[in-house]
Amino acid sequence: MIHFGGDYNPEQWPEKVWTADVELMRRAGVNLVTVGVFAWARLQPAPDEFDFGWLDRVLGLLGDGGIGVCLATPTASPPPWFTRRHPDAMPVTADGVRLTHGSRDTYCVNAPAYRTACARITGELAARYARHDAVRLWHVHNEYGTTCYCDHCAAAFRSWLADRYGDLAGLNDAWSTGFWSQRYGDWAEVLPPRATQYLGNPAHLLDYRRFVSDAMLAHYLSQRSILRASDAPVTTNFVLGGWVPVDHARWASEVDLVAIDDYPSSVGGHLAERAFAADRARGWARAAGHDDGRWLLMEHAPGAVRDAASGVVRPLDPGQARAAALTYLDRGAVGVMYFQWRQSRGGAEQWHPAIVPHQGPDTPIFAEISALGAEVARREPVTVTAAAALIHDEQTMWAWQAPGLDYEAICRRWHVAIGGIVDVVPPSVPLDGYRLVVAPVLYLLPAAGHRALRDYVRGGGTLVLTFASGLVDDCCRATPGALDDLIGARVVRHVPLLPGETVPIDGLDAVGRGWIDDLEPAGATVLLRAADGRPVLLEHRYGAGVVRYLATDLDDPRPGLPTDSGRPGR
Amino acid sequence: MIHFGGDYNPEQWPEKVWTADVELMRRAGVNLVTVGVFAWARLQPAPDEFDFGWLDRVLGLLGDGGIGVCLATPTASPPPWFTRRHPDAMPVTADGVRLTHGSRDTYCVNAPAYRTACARITGELAARYARHDAVRLWHVHNEYGTTCYCDHCAAAFRSWLADRYGDLAGLNDAWSTGFWSQRYGDWAEVLPPRATQYLGNPAHLLDYRRFVSDAMLAHYLSQRSILRASDAPVTTNFVLGGWVPVDHARWASEVDLVAIDDYPSSVGGHLAERAFAADRARGWARAAGHDDGRWLLMEHAPGAVRDAASGVVRPLDPGQARAAALTYLDRGAVGVMYFQWRQSRGGAEQWHPAIVPHQGPDTPIFAEISALGAEVARREPVTVTAAAALIHDEQTMWAWQAPGLDYEAICRRWHVAIGGIVDVVPPSVPLDGYRLVVAPVLYLLPAAGHRALRDYVRGGGTLVLTFASGLVDDCCRATPGALDDLIGARVVRHVPLLPGETVPIDGLDAVGRGWIDDLEPAGATVLLRAADGRPVLLEHRYGAGVVRYLATDLDDPRPGLPTDSGRPGR
Amino acid sequence: MIHFGGDYNPEQWPEKVWTADVELMRRAGVNLVTVGVFAWARLQPAPDEFDFGWLDRVLGLLGDGGIGVCLATPTASPPPWFTRRHPDAMPVTADGVRLTHGSRDTYCVNAPAYRTACARITGELAARYARHDAVRLWHVHNEYGTTCYCDHCAAAFRSWLADRYGDLAGLNDAWSTGFWSQRYGDWAEVLPPRATQYLGNPAHLLDYRRFVSDAMLAHYLSQRSILRASDAPVTTNFVLGGWVPVDHARWASEVDLVAIDDYPSSVGGHLAERAFAADRARGWARAAGHDDGRWLLMEHAPGAVRDAASGVVRPLDPGQARAAALTYLDRGAVGVMYFQWRQSRGGAEQWHPAIVPHQGPDTPIFAEISALGAEVARREPVTVTAAAALIHDEQTMWAWQAPGLDYEAICRRWHVAIGGIVDVVPPSVPLDGYRLVVAPVLYLLPAAGHRALRDYVRGGGTLVLTFASGLVDDCCRATPGALDDLIGARVVRHVPLLPGETVPIDGLDAVGRGWIDDLEPAGATVLLRAADGRPVLLEHRYGAGVVRYLATDLDDPRPGLPTDSGRPGR
Repeated sequence: MIHFGGDYNPEQWPEKVWTADVELMRRAGVNLVTVGVFAWARLQPAPDEFDFGWLDRVLGLLGDGGIGVCLATPTASPPPWFTRRHPDAMPVTADGVRLTHGSRDTYCVNAPAYRTACARITGELAARYARHDAVRLWHVHNEYGTTCYCDHCAAAFRSWLADRYGDLAGLNDAWSTGFWSQRYGDWAEVLPPRATQYLGNPAHLLDYRRFVSDAMLAHYLSQRSILRASDAPVTTNFVLGGWVPVDHARWASEVDLVAIDDYPSSVGGHLAERAFAADRARGWARAAGHDDGRWLLMEHAPGAVRDAASGVVRPLDPGQARAAALTYLDRGAVGVMYFQWRQSRGGAEQWHPAIVPHQGPDTPIFAEISALGAEVARREPVTVTAAAALIHDEQTMWAWQAPGLDYEAICRRWHVAIGGIVDVVPPSVPLDGYRLVVAPVLYLLPAAGHRALRDYVRGGGTLVLTFASGLVDDCCRATPGALDDLIGARVVRHVPLLPGETVPIDGLDAVGRGWIDDLEPAGATVLLRAADGRPVLLEHRYGAGVVRYLATDLDDPRPGLPTDSGRPGR
Repeated sequence: MIHFGGDYNPEQWPEKVWTADVELMRRAGVNLVTVGVFAWARLQPAPDEFDFGWLDRVLGLLGDGGIGVCLATPTASPPPWFTRRHPDAMPVTADGVRLTHGSRDTYCVNAPAYRTACARITGELAARYARHDAVRLWHVHNEYGTTCYCDHCAAAFRSWLADRYGDLAGLNDAWSTGFWSQRYGDWAEVLPPRATQYLGNPAHLLDYRRFVSDAMLAHYLSQRSILRASDAPVTTNFVLGGWVPVDHARWASEVDLVAIDDYPSSVGGHLAERAFAADRARGWARAAGHDDGRWLLMEHAPGAVRDAASGVVRPLDPGQARAAALTYLDRGAVGVMYFQWRQSRGGAEQWHPAIVPHQGPDTPIFAEISALGAEVARREPVTVTAAAALIHDEQTMWAWQAPGLDYEAICRRWHVAIGGIVDVVPPSVPLDGYRLVVAPVLYLLPAAGHRALRDYVRGGGTLVLTFASGLVDDCCRATPGALDDLIGARVVRHVPLLPGETVPIDGLDAVGRGWIDDLEPAGATVLLRAADGRPVLLEHRYGAGVVRYLATDLDDPRPGLPTDSGRPGR
Repeated sequence: MIHFGGDYNPEQWPEKVWTADVELMRRAGVNLVTVGVFAWARLQPAPDEFDFGWLDRVLGLLGDGGIGVCLATPTASPPPWFTRRHPDAMPVTADGVRLTHGSRDTYCVNAPAYRTACARITGELAARYARHDAVRLWHVHNEYGTTCYCDHCAAAFRSWLADRYGDLAGLNDAWSTGFWSQRYGDWAEVLPPRATQYLGNPAHLLDYRRFVSDAMLAHYLSQRSILRASDAPVTTNFVLGGWVPVDHARWASEVDLVAIDDYPSSVGGHLAERAFAADRARGWARAAGHDDGRWLLMEHAPGAVRDAASGVVRPLDPGQARAAALTYLDRGAVGVMYFQWRQSRGGAEQWHPAIVPHQGPDTPIFAEISALGAEVARREPVTVTAAAALIHDEQTMWAWQAPGLDYEAICRRWHVAIGGIVDVVPPSVPLDGYRLVVAPVLYLLPAAGHRALRDYVRGGGTLVLTFASGLVDDCCRATPGALDDLIGARVVRHVPLLPGETVPIDGLDAVGRGWIDDLEPAGATVLLRAADGRPVLLEHRYGAGVVRYLATDLDDPRPGLPTDSGRPGR
């Protein structure tokens, strides 16, 4: 069975609407709804007052209607009473501004009062609904992603660093504090990367993102341990985006089912973006050893895309909602869920698309989603196998330093170039099953990563690397020449290019942009050269395998792919 | 008689200049000058020290020269001694930054110390000049517009909300706090919309603007009650702009004469902008029942426009200052006043245009303004009647949510399209006298607004509505279908368009942009269709009148107007 | 001998690298390296702990290798222990955000604790190395430039103002506080220009920049007095840029050798930018009476330019590093130094170009710099004489108010137009030795400046002035007509132009942009007119000399130059 449904927020509606909703859900083929994501203030209207009666009735109605429940802990949005009592649990920006309630996601996961309050409401939910028939899945929190720079975080960061580096000597070495007189002599001197006069230390900044990820993971694990009172699996919904300080590859092994929210950024390219997101989700699931890489699409917008450049939410043409759903399902999703079921009358997202819009069910979107529900009901989840993998690394995304070159955009272009179904995986995943591995601009690469790439090729694999690969280790320290033996050439010099600057390539109706390496081949064959003679594409036999190296960035990187990978090559 | 003159700041000049100024004013036909706007530090150089001697002399000179005085209270710019003694009366930004003196407008109208200090200086002025012969008009404060988020404001906001909504249940309902767990359980939890993690609540944001308007109005009323010791009328100068948290329609009935400052934003379009501003001012005056809609232009720049896009202050070609003045006078202004009389030697606005520039009176601008003064002296204020009204609503402007679509620009294009003299009125104005009412994108519409539109058409009026009308009530809650019966069609779906996306229209050399509604006509006739068949212009007989509905945005919206309104139609 | 070398940061590297470095430096022809700039945390790892052993060894190795040392005081980057103990010595932004360590340059020069700590470490260095053989030059601090708005600064600012203006009456007059009720009645009311509600007072803003410059100068002088224990000359490296609150003309007389850091902003124009910077440095040196205008290039990037618009650091083509160095040397530099010797493995500037890049010395850049070292070793510093001077004024740069017109860009275009070697000088320099003086847009001009220009022309000089000259005095007060007699015309009106607006000029294949004055010639001859008849270029005989006045801005201003200056004229 495929899960089909979405976020349902009955706390925004009078009870008579609930009955109508269940009936409409049945018409639409909905079989799973996420309940309770932002219901904290309703469930616990005051510090010592709980109200579960309404939720009992909602779950009863849904259960009676044959609709399963993904029950959420409501901790992503603490109620106003919490703020008032615990201002120290509100997040603080790098500039020292303490935020307050009035939106959502306003909390510091390292604040003791917040941790306690979260454990309490989660405990109440677990105690009451652990064995509820309708509950199929637990949904911890929502879209983890609030970074904070407060003093609670400073203390927790120091502990995290002490665990990671042992002592200050280790920290000073890892962070290269010899530069700019940053050497720490006492743990108390170590702070979050708060506002400072000029450029920050990249290792400091990167470790803070890792720390925030781990701090949020601890928050998640604390709730998961409480929810284990239930037999239902536990997960949280990963939100994608460069700003998100969550190391999803690491989290994937702590959720019982990888679940993502997917909001593409452009109307024209939404299906390609969805395919990439789906392949990433499956890559995380596979990396964590989950059940043949199956995963759940927890949220997407029904029949509309928010154009990131303009902020316009553009309804899609008929058929595109179906095309979107099939893109996910064909890539291993066990369910396609929407945000949200019924469009909110008020609040910040009152115009966010919904299955039941303000105009009601007699609307094209309800019709299209209902038809899709019927179609999906006849399908089963598919197990996907891919011959090719694309390495996409959130550590590299966070550490990336190349003005004018967008790591995400480069990876997405390679994803399209490879074509078909590709496992998009973190570098930690075993590579030996793949016929082709493409690792674009893998800027950050620890020693283990070097070994993994070498082992894969030595064992017969075909690897495609590019410029800007293996430039730093996991502490952002330069590692010059680290991959020279593998690519069969010395990278003598990096030449970042100016906006608009191009490098014509011999025999190719394409130009390089953004970057070109100066290479001295040492074992590799030159497949393509720039018009000025500089090598731009190398091929190197290494062990039983072969490595390609593309020294510049192409709008369409297909020429970088080997032809024997079954894809267009030179 | 037409008032002719401008802001005069003798406190910036030695006394010998005053005599020369009066002589020059007479040459220029000046008959009214605004004195004292920023003179607080000069009038009250220390907390317990007042100096009115200089002002006595200034008013004496002016009076002797036959020049009337619009006497201002100086409260828009408290002196540095005030800041030092009352830091809690300085405004605080949403980020928590407490501002300090060094500019102007730096105050919190809800701070008790500020209210007290304002009452005191106003009291002194009233006591001394209430019966002064030269004083023709009182000018309270200047360009109200400072928003503050401090704790004084928080407390006052709570009182204001309690008055508006009665209890917390009312507030929670009005603000749709079921969304994102924002339910308030105690008044003390309610705050100004300070910095928070993500999107704010639109009802919260809108009510804060209303509250700020009312708080400033209370400040104004407190001064007005003191100035009633004089028989001269009392007003304040409205400043126009999307950032201004003043509900001018509401304020208009509290001033004895509607007065606006007008600073167009573009050189090419300055006359059209002035016409729109003038028609708005008359609309407010008419809404408040003032004297046939007469109003005063309190400030504009002599012979120059600040191009908002570039910040360049561009002198206008000869004749344009006259054209500007006639635009205002032809639309009911009882006076045209300039900022300022004599260009300041120093300070932030030393390059702001003036009637007497740094180069002195032997300059083209002084000559042009003087000639205009002579011409104006032969005119009398005109009473303007308009057959058409354009509804322009500051509540909609504040609540407006449509990325890429500029509410002000849309209204201005309709204003041009209707042509001639149009009353630009708030929705509260009685509509029955108009042959044509155009209400573009009237996003926010409370129940009373729905009734007023229906009554107008039912009684035989001709109404033009557009897409994005009546989408929310006065608490920003969606009101789907609210106008369907009036337009004779069901609005099935809103389709916001991407930047650059266009909708070709059959039989029209024009395209729709920005938005198109999907409509199901139910009684209305389709007058225009998109090339793909979607209706874009409907006409519906309703009662004794007729309603047009334009479902998209046209660069030139004239095709939306009925031909029998005497304007170009289809 | 020409100094050749760069910044050397041995504290970032193990000792074995030091030996290799000295050997490589000899190969590269390096004869001077700057040591210790960011070594505070290494030299003083704790408040009462010093470690000079490593520096002894470094200086020993360098001295033994025949390489001179420019020894820096490390005060530009206080260690984390300092921050922890003295949070009040961290800088505060205008918004009130107190910054913390984590970068560099994070200090307040007015904080007593910082001044004390700086004196202490400088004293230790002076005591130990004053007579060290290798030390050729002292380098105080690094790139002074941190502006702070804290309470220490407020107190120091008041003292500085009291010194400058005597009493509050003087201050109020100088700052034109009659405008906007800003009159100060007590020194305690005077504050740094912290965040306020609207536009600040230009005189307040300008004086704050001057004050910051003087406060930093006092910090510099305090270190210089300590370092006078040594016979070696003392300097600091000037960093160029509009944001820098340092009055270099004033500082030049306090350094024993003018030294600048030069980072051009565009790849295409880097040589012209370098020529301009070199001519500025020589101008400051000449103004301060230093040794025929000789100066030192303390830093530039080896063979690369950071494109300011994109942030891309673009390696230059072969030969360009040489061309850059010769540009400096031909314009009087006594040395060309690079930042930095060896590329840092980690830290914020790990990708900053270096002589020895990550890839090591077997690289094109090391080869090019080494060849250049050999070439430079055969040269001696040259004494440069210039027939023409360009007045470039940092006070005008700070005070400049003309949206859309870039003071720096205008001056650079004139510099190119004059061509060849030009002394770029502050207005304080004696002008009588020059055949031609060009003073573009000299907005701010005190009475002494007026006199100097008049005296120069009266004595037979040829002066070129432009629009926007002499508009304000040194307190930013308008000085209308101040230069009318000199240019032989009355400037009746300034007409700033809109972006894209052009003024065609008769007989010239060029258009005016940005600004045009309306002029009434009174003695001057009109050399060029706009197509509409307005004069755009005047020539006026004044005393024994001649003045040209160009009333608009030309992309190539050569037509403004007199032909008898030996440069292309009309």
